[in-house]
Amino acid sequence: MKSFASDNYSGVHPQILKAISDVNADHAAAYGSDVYTEKAIQQFKQLLGESVEVYFTFIGTAANVLGLKALTQPHHAVICTDTAHINVDECGAPERFTGCKLLTVSTVDGKLRIADIEKFQSSVGNEHHVQPKVISISQTTELGTLYTPDEIKALADYAHSHNMYLQMDGARIANAAAALNMPIKSFTFDCGVDVLSFGGTKNGMMYGEAIVFANASLCENFKYIRKQGMQLASKMRYISAQFSAYLSDDLYLKTAHHANAMAQLLVEKLNDIPEVEITQKSTANGIFAKLPKEIIKPLQDEYFFYEWNEQNHEVRWMCSWDTTETEIENFTALIKKLLKTA
Amino acid sequence: MKSFASDNYSGVHPQILKAISDVNADHAAAYGSDVYTEKAIQQFKQLLGESVEVYFTFIGTAANVLGLKALTQPHHAVICTDTAHINVDECGAPERFTGCKLLTVSTVDGKLRIADIEKFQSSVGNEHHVQPKVISISQTTELGTLYTPDEIKALADYAHSHNMYLQMDGARIANAAAALNMPIKSFTFDCGVDVLSFGGTKNGMMYGEAIVFANASLCENFKYIRKQGMQLASKMRYISAQFSAYLSDDLYLKTAHHANAMAQLLVEKLNDIPEVEITQKSTANGIFAKLPKEIIKPLQDEYFFYEWNEQNHEVRWMCSWDTTETEIENFTALIKKLLKTA
Amino acid sequence: MKSFASDNYSGVHPQILKAISDVNADHAAAYGSDVYTEKAIQQFKQLLGESVEVYFTFIGTAANVLGLKALTQPHHAVICTDTAHINVDECGAPERFTGCKLLTVSTVDGKLRIADIEKFQSSVGNEHHVQPKVISISQTTELGTLYTPDEIKALADYAHSHNMYLQMDGARIANAAAALNMPIKSFTFDCGVDVLSFGGTKNGMMYGEAIVFANASLCENFKYIRKQGMQLASKMRYISAQFSAYLSDDLYLKTAHHANAMAQLLVEKLNDIPEVEITQKSTANGIFAKLPKEIIKPLQDEYFFYEWNEQNHEVRWMCSWDTTETEIENFTALIKKLLKTA
Amino acid sequence: MKSFASDNYSGVHPQILKAISDVNADHAAAYGSDVYTEKAIQQFKQLLGESVEVYFTFIGTAANVLGLKALTQPHHAVICTDTAHINVDECGAPERFTGCKLLTVSTVDGKLRIADIEKFQSSVGNEHHVQPKVISISQTTELGTLYTPDEIKALADYAHSHNMYLQMDGARIANAAAALNMPIKSFTFDCGVDVLSFGGTKNGMMYGEAIVFANASLCENFKYIRKQGMQLASKMRYISAQFSAYLSDDLYLKTAHHANAMAQLLVEKLNDIPEVEITQKSTANGIFAKLPKEIIKPLQDEYFFYEWNEQNHEVRWMCSWDTTETEIENFTALIKKLLKTA
Repeated sequence: MKSFASDNYSGVHPQILKAISDVNADHAAAYGSDVYTEKAIQQFKQLLGESVEVYFTFIGTAANVLGLKALTQPHHAVICTDTAHINVDECGAPERFTGCKLLTVSTVDGKLRIADIEKFQSSVGNEHHVQPKVISISQTTELGTLYTPDEIKALADYAHSHNMYLQMDGARIANAAAALNMPIKSFTFDCGVDVLSFGGTKNGMMYGEAIVFANASLCENFKYIRKQGMQLASKMRYISAQFSAYLSDDLYLKTAHHANAMAQLLVEKLNDIPEVEITQKSTANGIFAKLPKEIIKPLQDEYFFYEWNEQNHEVRWMCSWDTTETEIENFTALIKKLLKTA
Repeated sequence: MKSFASDNYSGVHPQILKAISDVNADHAAAYGSDVYTEKAIQQFKQLLGESVEVYFTFIGTAANVLGLKALTQPHHAVICTDTAHINVDECGAPERFTGCKLLTVSTVDGKLRIADIEKFQSSVGNEHHVQPKVISISQTTELGTLYTPDEIKALADYAHSHNMYLQMDGARIANAAAALNMPIKSFTFDCGVDVLSFGGTKNGMMYGEAIVFANASLCENFKYIRKQGMQLASKMRYISAQFSAYLSDDLYLKTAHHANAMAQLLVEKLNDIPEVEITQKSTANGIFAKLPKEIIKPLQDEYFFYEWNEQNHEVRWMCSWDTTETEIENFTALIKKLLKTA
Repeated sequence: MKSFASDNYSGVHPQILKAISDVNADHAAAYGSDVYTEKAIQQFKQLLGESVEVYFTFIGTAANVLGLKALTQPHHAVICTDTAHINVDECGAPERFTGCKLLTVSTVDGKLRIADIEKFQSSVGNEHHVQPKVISISQTTELGTLYTPDEIKALADYAHSHNMYLQMDGARIANAAAALNMPIKSFTFDCGVDVLSFGGTKNGMMYGEAIVFANASLCENFKYIRKQGMQLASKMRYISAQFSAYLSDDLYLKTAHHANAMAQLLVEKLNDIPEVEITQKSTANGIFAKLPKEIIKPLQDEYFFYEWNEQNHEVRWMCSWDTTETEIENFTALIKKLLKTA
Repeated sequence: MKSFASDNYSGVHPQILKAISDVNADHAAAYGSDVYTEKAIQQFKQLLGESVEVYFTFIGTAANVLGLKALTQPHHAVICTDTAHINVDECGAPERFTGCKLLTVSTVDGKLRIADIEKFQSSVGNEHHVQPKVISISQTTELGTLYTPDEIKALADYAHSHNMYLQMDGARIANAAAALNMPIKSFTFDCGVDVLSFGGTKNGMMYGEAIVFANASLCENFKYIRKQGMQLASKMRYISAQFSAYLSDDLYLKTAHHANAMAQLLVEKLNDIPEVEITQKSTANGIFAKLPKEIIKPLQDEYFFYEWNEQNHEVRWMCSWDTTETEIENFTALIKKLLKTA
């Protein structure tokens, strides 16, 4: 099976698989009190700063939800775009586990701007209204776009000057780092991000995400939140070993660079096809495009992908760490062929 | 590191690890729409009956909590022992996610009996009181003991005749099957169990548990509950592959038989040591014993284990699929040595 | 103090107060098992149909939230306007107590239309998305507008043909009945409404709202939901007595007609003032208007009211059962005076 | 109807009713921003200390639940007796709204003792277990017994030295004050109570309870918790007026003294009847007694009351502010008569 459906359709990178195998000997203390977990956490500190605190979870939804829970009370609200993963793709888990309402903003490119969120301040102090407490952004966004460090810093500053926090959904943080060609720290904690969902699964890991807090004061009781949130792994070493390999020798960057490069190759090839309109300016691994309705189904039959917007026939094509140039070539060739016969 | 702390301190069985490796090729549909998951579910149906419905989760706490959620409304109550994992070891996740109160019964051996739970019926129909809806039992129990099929059937019949369900925490269901020398189906769904948490992690898997419902009517909306409960794996094939290997060639039984045999060997050796008093009659893989206070700490330094009851110096020793006879011999030899010098 | 702030700034109608006094003798069974409650419920059945089921709560927020809870599971969603009381003015209580997400629609007049909500059907059956289950409308709306019976029936039919329910926030249902000049039944249960929050407090009662279900199958376990939702009054007779008086001799209609008439008188007077622009076509008791910024504050100093939209200086003026013609005259005279000196 | 069922079967004291009537003129700001509420709060401060913070709710269940919510996170636990109102009679609302588990202790007299609760400290710091955060006691207890100030101070000191709070369910706090013949402040905030549910409904009010926090730091965001908890009254003045009258001229003490005196008269009369065994030493308004099974039903037919324990035929008789000596005499005469014919 070949697909451009999602970067979680791909398998596990061989170095990750080997790392799992390598720690599979003897007993190790359960629930994260093991040497492999300690090592992985140290690697995170080296990457993101000594003051960060790191907790592993199984999935990205949990990383977002538990991170938000750490920063909120149920009468708070989380501001996000209407296309945010937390708003659309988590089956209400954020509201369910935090109690908070999500206050959404409609955007053209999946990016929050301060001008769009200032209106929510009018509720502050009024007991009839939920109280804005967290600004949540995704990097890369769900539309494949990117925030610049300056944009992130401006949102963080706005948050902090209004008694709020900035949370970042980094399910594709490695792709963002590769696209921006900057260290992750430089556009996260250096800019004032308070908590980051650091993804692994979409970029070559088997399972495992990290919640990274800027400092210990933000997660004083977090170990209980994680346990009660059903995200404490007993055999934690197998997540930790994956992250250790992922962060070693820039593996996360290499896989992300490759996925991004394949997406850009796809864009390049698509630019030759006038019937296909690229709709978002993405330099990471997700491409959005409109194409003639009649070729969507036959194209999906060969390479599965999602129709993002059924009304205007906009589709999403995700490239992965294991996407090959040949796949891109065959895929675009098929598009051309289908357009001819359509 | 060697330990008798918990069966989740042990690693992953080589056949499980190989199975993970074997499915690591190409793309597979995410979230369980893949052939490996379909295959694993079919194996569960062969083992437990064609009518069962199977959903995978990451951990046992989630298997219990989500299974209970499927059967309850927030004004309901779950009846269990005061030593139940759901009552003691899940940081309140059952109450948090189901809204239900746990109604607990004190026992000597970790087993619920009908006589102990009849009193809760006096609340039925009274809006001031939570309404008993589920009887929850563990097989094996948290004290290493076992329910007979007759006992389970009696509890199921009582539950069903009182508008309740029977849920079973089977974190160690394979050890129970090995100890009883009976097929799992014969003491679960054949006896009237409505939902079973079918454990894998404690008996040689890396991660992954199954929630098995007796039939489809018990889990109509369960896919949403699992997703909202943050337990839907994106790369599901890696859980499914583990379960496929686990259920093939009776691997789950072989590992469980071994763990149980090691525990029984431990009991045998302990019977020669008068200072050690076995406190629970366990034929599975967990041994409870009281021993002189002064040797606990030095013994833990060599082989870590938990003091179950700090008041009376009762300890718990768990054997695992990878415990060796040599370890048992060395461990009991150390006990004897420590007793001499104590 | 005189105000046009809200109809809950007004006091209690003398007949309501007398009714409370009249039942204040002897003991009465607590929690609604009393003859006064039985009588009030019968009056509701006479008004709204024999099949309805009636439960009293303390406040309108609770009537909405508990009514929605009765119809939903936490993975469901409630569709409403972005100006809905449940979305804006209940501090997240709907999400908090039901677990559900609210899916909002932006409107010009506070009224939901089928064309605006059809898009939500694309989520049905997809476990990643919350599942639309209830359409919630307000009658009168928060903008003072009204649904016609045909519009309500169309929404109910749409809901029922899509496996959903129709809930109506009737905090001002009496004002709607008066404005439409129709029996409440004719534009609620006759049109297919499943659950109605039947308001009392805003139209002359001291406290007390009713949740009215179309039939018993919609509220099987509702008594537990109400108790767990902290809305079961111990001395229930004092709510019941109020509703008995409220529903007797069309008191609810008389007070509502008066409030509406005062609002229409206000509109009439405002039509003579070109600087004041009426922004919503309301025939009930709430008037929305834009007026010069500089007179808002001095006007509020004399007669308090809320600025609805601080950006465009739109204000809301609510008339009540006790608003007098003299107040309307003095108020509009003051507007004129302030405009002159402004 | 005459009864000894509960003190909430009685009506409203005439002075309370008059107070409601007295404030029923003109408009008043909604949601507690009115002069009557300000006055009532000042009266509470005079009674309980200038530093206390006061919030009104509709019912006692809500006073308990919201007070506990203010002090806890969902991974916390509340320690209480197994007969506590929060454990037995609130349909799981405490767990539902706070997320916390209740850790219960079995007692003979409804009173918590430090020796019984020390065991819960062994969970502190362990992420698998809920974390004890609040000790909850009732004064008077649900069994009619009383804590001495020394006992309360000891519990408060224990709580505070273990990073916990002390919450008091004072649904019958006036009866406790009357029985102890001490000012409420002397056995609540002077002893270290952190939050008190101050009851009104059971002692002559129509509806309304107060949550009283020892100081402002305990309730920083409480106004949002109350609103989200659906306990913010729009026409608040009618609760406030009741409390103003209740706290004026020691009305609360007079009604409580009367109820207690009637209960003591009942005890006196019962002491002459050897077939009736008083089971709890109560000096407040609730009497517990065992009596021959065969007279319970005929006695209830004349004067309704609750069988507290159906197994041993223990019943509860509550006296109220409006219980008369004649009722006591007639009731005990009936007992004697029934015993003769039994």
